[in-house]
Amino acid sequence: MMTAEENFSLQRRRFVEAMVRNGVDAALVTSLVNLYYFTGEVFSGYLYITSSGDFYRFLKRDSVDKKDYDFTIRKPEQIPDILKEEGLEEASVLMLEFGEMSHSDYVRLEKVFSADKIVDSTPLLRSLRSIKSPWEIEQIKKSAFMQAEICSLVPEIYKKGMTDIELQSEIEMAMRKRGSIGCFRAFGSFMEIHMGSLLAGDNAAAPSPYDFALGGRGVHPAMPLGACGMKLEEGMAVMVDMAGNYTAYMSDMTRTFSVGKLTEKAYKAHSVSVEIGLAMMDSAKPGTPCSDIYKNALSIVEKEGLTDCFMGKNLQAGFVGHGVGLQINELPVLASRSSEVLMEGMTFAFEPKFVIDGVGAVGVENTFVVTEENVEKITVYPEGIIAL
Amino acid sequence: MMTAEENFSLQRRRFVEAMVRNGVDAALVTSLVNLYYFTGEVFSGYLYITSSGDFYRFLKRDSVDKKDYDFTIRKPEQIPDILKEEGLEEASVLMLEFGEMSHSDYVRLEKVFSADKIVDSTPLLRSLRSIKSPWEIEQIKKSAFMQAEICSLVPEIYKKGMTDIELQSEIEMAMRKRGSIGCFRAFGSFMEIHMGSLLAGDNAAAPSPYDFALGGRGVHPAMPLGACGMKLEEGMAVMVDMAGNYTAYMSDMTRTFSVGKLTEKAYKAHSVSVEIGLAMMDSAKPGTPCSDIYKNALSIVEKEGLTDCFMGKNLQAGFVGHGVGLQINELPVLASRSSEVLMEGMTFAFEPKFVIDGVGAVGVENTFVVTEENVEKITVYPEGIIAL
Repeated sequence: MMTAEENFSLQRRRFVEAMVRNGVDAALVTSLVNLYYFTGEVFSGYLYITSSGDFYRFLKRDSVDKKDYDFTIRKPEQIPDILKEEGLEEASVLMLEFGEMSHSDYVRLEKVFSADKIVDSTPLLRSLRSIKSPWEIEQIKKSAFMQAEICSLVPEIYKKGMTDIELQSEIEMAMRKRGSIGCFRAFGSFMEIHMGSLLAGDNAAAPSPYDFALGGRGVHPAMPLGACGMKLEEGMAVMVDMAGNYTAYMSDMTRTFSVGKLTEKAYKAHSVSVEIGLAMMDSAKPGTPCSDIYKNALSIVEKEGLTDCFMGKNLQAGFVGHGVGLQINELPVLASRSSEVLMEGMTFAFEPKFVIDGVGAVGVENTFVVTEENVEKITVYPEGIIAL
Repeated sequence: MMTAEENFSLQRRRFVEAMVRNGVDAALVTSLVNLYYFTGEVFSGYLYITSSGDFYRFLKRDSVDKKDYDFTIRKPEQIPDILKEEGLEEASVLMLEFGEMSHSDYVRLEKVFSADKIVDSTPLLRSLRSIKSPWEIEQIKKSAFMQAEICSLVPEIYKKGMTDIELQSEIEMAMRKRGSIGCFRAFGSFMEIHMGSLLAGDNAAAPSPYDFALGGRGVHPAMPLGACGMKLEEGMAVMVDMAGNYTAYMSDMTRTFSVGKLTEKAYKAHSVSVEIGLAMMDSAKPGTPCSDIYKNALSIVEKEGLTDCFMGKNLQAGFVGHGVGLQINELPVLASRSSEVLMEGMTFAFEPKFVIDGVGAVGVENTFVVTEENVEKITVYPEGIIAL
């Protein structure tokens, strides 16, 4: 088994190799997730990595145990002098995280360093992070194990007459008592969500401004997403897509529950979702274009005549899956115009979902890891519609 | 009573007046909170406001009811042509939200517009937002009312033998059942928190990388903040500082509970916290420098010999309060080097807290609104230590 330290060391080495390939002299890592990715700790400050493989932590707060590569600073303007004292040359080409830092922070850091050229590390880091180490896969599996346990609890948590928010908040409590960190980390600005999504009945068709697969009205215009406070009633599907954030690494899993009986169309669409998942598992392997996975899913949907309710109703998402890891929306993206191909070590969620008028959302979502020969499902739990 | 529409209209007018004062031709508003601030809706897209007072919404998703100033777009590159068709001249000086958008987004938007100069709207918007309208104050009062209700429930939620996370997650559920939106909005990159903070015993002294008043170890290195899974035991103070996010506008309130009896020092420090709050209420009014509020608090702390445990133990926060609104850390900041003065309509949290060795955190936090003559407390609930 790989240790945590071996993992972080491997991730730094892979990044350094990529820096050398790209002619980059040094990188300043600044975001919470990427600080954790390279060190296993979230700290207030900066990680400076050079193309020679040296690295330094600049801590603005003494919140972590000090290592011999740590320096305490009050502000980033102190970094260049410390690097000079350490005998380092100024980086001519420097990488910053354009996608994870505010423009204000960029403007400030640009002045701190006298680099000839500042380049964006976000696409490279997202690409490197899409290939998981054995240690990272173990972390995702731990989250997946807890997600399955939460699914198993839903029927006992449910009580007749509950609202969607009552059911969701009881599930949230069960998650927190089992170690969910709460915060749901995502990449990008329209990815705000509270612990996941529980969608019942026609609320599943309500469009939302956020970039998630499905929407929902939410409880307040300030947060138009997910459960809306409606009563759960006979004939409704209840789609439970709550966060798998029990380690730093997230799994993603959805199961569908029903209050009483659903319509024939709902059961049919649900079994088509399961079928699409099996078909994907039959064909996906290293080298498979992610766009093919989307197109294959869509061709089954078309054959079954379910195109109009695939991935939403009033607003349909244009993807059927996405990488998972430190954030819920990592690479690859499983969409028609995706240019990525599956590679060994990738972990992705696959979520063919349908929104049925008068019933709600049905379908399953599982997380997979790409192995040497094919894909392995790591969110293991029965996939049929579970009657409440 | 002011209506919601009157409020949003007022906010746009105040912004337009400030644009004119600053020689700005137009502003593109892009962040969730500022889209809500000006329109009362969160939508995926952009709000374009001109110095003539015209405004246009560019929607990337049809998730809101269409208004006559709405245009549907796929990408921001379509905006300039639409503005041209509407007969608008290109803005020579354009405002973008440097502090709320990623550098990647900035780089993209900079190319979309052919402005001679792009200036930062974040400081101006934070300044404008610090003065609340009567409607905004009503929203904060609604949140404050719910926070007081949650406080009243803590003694019945608590059960002997609970861990801090068990108590916190039960409180979280009670909050969600009463309409908390869940997500805790803050400004800046080291402000990640899940629904608030519950700190018991020595965990209150654990330093955290995040920029909150107090720390806590958290449940996982991925999220080193707050409750840590420890058992609540006799003699511990339990500080409950959970979110007041029941509308788009947040209130902020902390009460201290005790498991059995605390030490004399803990009770004394707690009553000093209450005393500091009363002293602040006696002197604060429009025109009061925020640095004076901090210094006055500190001088009481010094007189009482509690400097070493004020605002933390191993890591002490350098402020005693902060503005609240759409985000938890708005202006003004109540710190020694703050340059702001209180103005009518400001809403701020005041939180003189102490961390006592072997006991935990004690003190109270309340939210205040600055009125014409003084300040009014809007988080109304008994302030003594409540025995569990």
